[in-house]
Amino acid sequence: MKLGAIEAGGTKFVCAVGDEQFNVIERTAFPTKTPAETLAETVAFFKEHPVDAIGIGSFGPIDINPDSATYGYVTKTPKPGWQNADFLGYIQRELDVPTAWTTDVNEAAYGEAVAGATQGDDTSIYVTIGTGIGAGVVSHGGFYAGRTHTELGHLVMNRLPGDDLVSVCPFHDNCAEGLASGPAVNKRAGKPAVELAEDDPIWQTEANYIAQICVDLTVAFAPDKIILNGGVMHQQQLMPMVRDDFQTMFNNYQDLPAMTDYIVPAQLKDNSGIVGGFALAKDAL
Amino acid sequence: MKLGAIEAGGTKFVCAVGDEQFNVIERTAFPTKTPAETLAETVAFFKEHPVDAIGIGSFGPIDINPDSATYGYVTKTPKPGWQNADFLGYIQRELDVPTAWTTDVNEAAYGEAVAGATQGDDTSIYVTIGTGIGAGVVSHGGFYAGRTHTELGHLVMNRLPGDDLVSVCPFHDNCAEGLASGPAVNKRAGKPAVELAEDDPIWQTEANYIAQICVDLTVAFAPDKIILNGGVMHQQQLMPMVRDDFQTMFNNYQDLPAMTDYIVPAQLKDNSGIVGGFALAKDAL
Repeated sequence: MKLGAIEAGGTKFVCAVGDEQFNVIERTAFPTKTPAETLAETVAFFKEHPVDAIGIGSFGPIDINPDSATYGYVTKTPKPGWQNADFLGYIQRELDVPTAWTTDVNEAAYGEAVAGATQGDDTSIYVTIGTGIGAGVVSHGGFYAGRTHTELGHLVMNRLPGDDLVSVCPFHDNCAEGLASGPAVNKRAGKPAVELAEDDPIWQTEANYIAQICVDLTVAFAPDKIILNGGVMHQQQLMPMVRDDFQTMFNNYQDLPAMTDYIVPAQLKDNSGIVGGFALAKDAL
Repeated sequence: MKLGAIEAGGTKFVCAVGDEQFNVIERTAFPTKTPAETLAETVAFFKEHPVDAIGIGSFGPIDINPDSATYGYVTKTPKPGWQNADFLGYIQRELDVPTAWTTDVNEAAYGEAVAGATQGDDTSIYVTIGTGIGAGVVSHGGFYAGRTHTELGHLVMNRLPGDDLVSVCPFHDNCAEGLASGPAVNKRAGKPAVELAEDDPIWQTEANYIAQICVDLTVAFAPDKIILNGGVMHQQQLMPMVRDDFQTMFNNYQDLPAMTDYIVPAQLKDNSGIVGGFALAKDAL
């Protein structure tokens, strides 16, 4: 059995072929251009490396309602050319194999879940903090969704006193993505954040906002685990700072697992999405 | 068929008997004293008015995990005497009928759902803003729960510039309950909030915080409807102000139903919980 995975980001696409144990056999990555170019490139990869099923995790917003006429489409994205692009339909027409379709963060959340973050009925939340902020919720064996998928990058933040950053989110003055995504940190620093010292006060601000996200996720979804990943989390100093700020803010309101088991890095690092795609493909068979 | 409902609040208990169409036949209410006194009073009511099943919605936190040794208990509440009270067990031992057990806000959310707020697979969220703030999420025919039930009264608020209220939440400096519950409004007013003029600026502050709650609920749960109820919402001027602030903050980030269909008052007013209890009792049969 060969499994396919597509991790479709707004910046790059990753396509991979794996075996039943989710080992990567083939892998490619290319920049996200127009749907015509990028989906053709995706299909070409899987025509060269045939698979029995494909799991797709896409940047969004996307239509996840199987009863909708636009199921499988990317919908209202600001990404040029992708508004109302029939992503899933194109893949299904060109590659006649079973498919699974969800958000990029759900796919990664599922990858972490099958890698052991979640047991049985547990709830785990995968948060990516990078170019954007997003989160996927795996609970009781499925993804949480309501009318549509979650948009947890836009939770309202409590703006810290003295933080006068103009939000980088084009919609919201005080959302998580606007104040705490990678571009927000760069803007606050006035230079690429990777050039900041590890003990720069900007990381204190960043840790505080990430901790606020974790508090909101805790009271909203009552997860067993929150997994933090994405480019910003490559800053190793952040994880203990986030845990400390979370404990201060949450103030032992509920009994939680030990912090080192509760707010954790991704086990699969940059492979969470691909492994999740393989697992979704396997489920689709 | 006679259905029983218990709406167990931290201040008062309401017990009722209804018919299969959820019409109230008998009803009583009494103050919440010790578990021994109050649960005995509850049982006495149902011994006098026998029912075929009972739906229970309780103030919390409560244990909702059927595999837990303390399933059916009230757990870490500050309410004197109720820590680790075996609420459900006592009812089951004294009244030998099928029972259903959930939070007070879930029970009310279910009442609104069966009254038509939710259709089929829809997601609706019932928020009570009164002595405390809490919310129940009905989604795809069930209640959302993770490791435990939601605690949405403790979402992080963006404290408004100039709002120097010391939070009334004993745990959190900037949570919804701490800044926007009834006691918070009273404290901000320096007198009972019912004595404030309808156009007092304090209601602007209140509407803003409630709108923040609605934004967080929207991005977290993608509901089809948010129902606002509770003592504070008796202030009729608040609903349009909340909708306006929500629209300003959310800034058309997603296509949503019309505001008057999206953020709405409870259809059943003070009966949401009792009707939800009847419906849960019917399901338990």
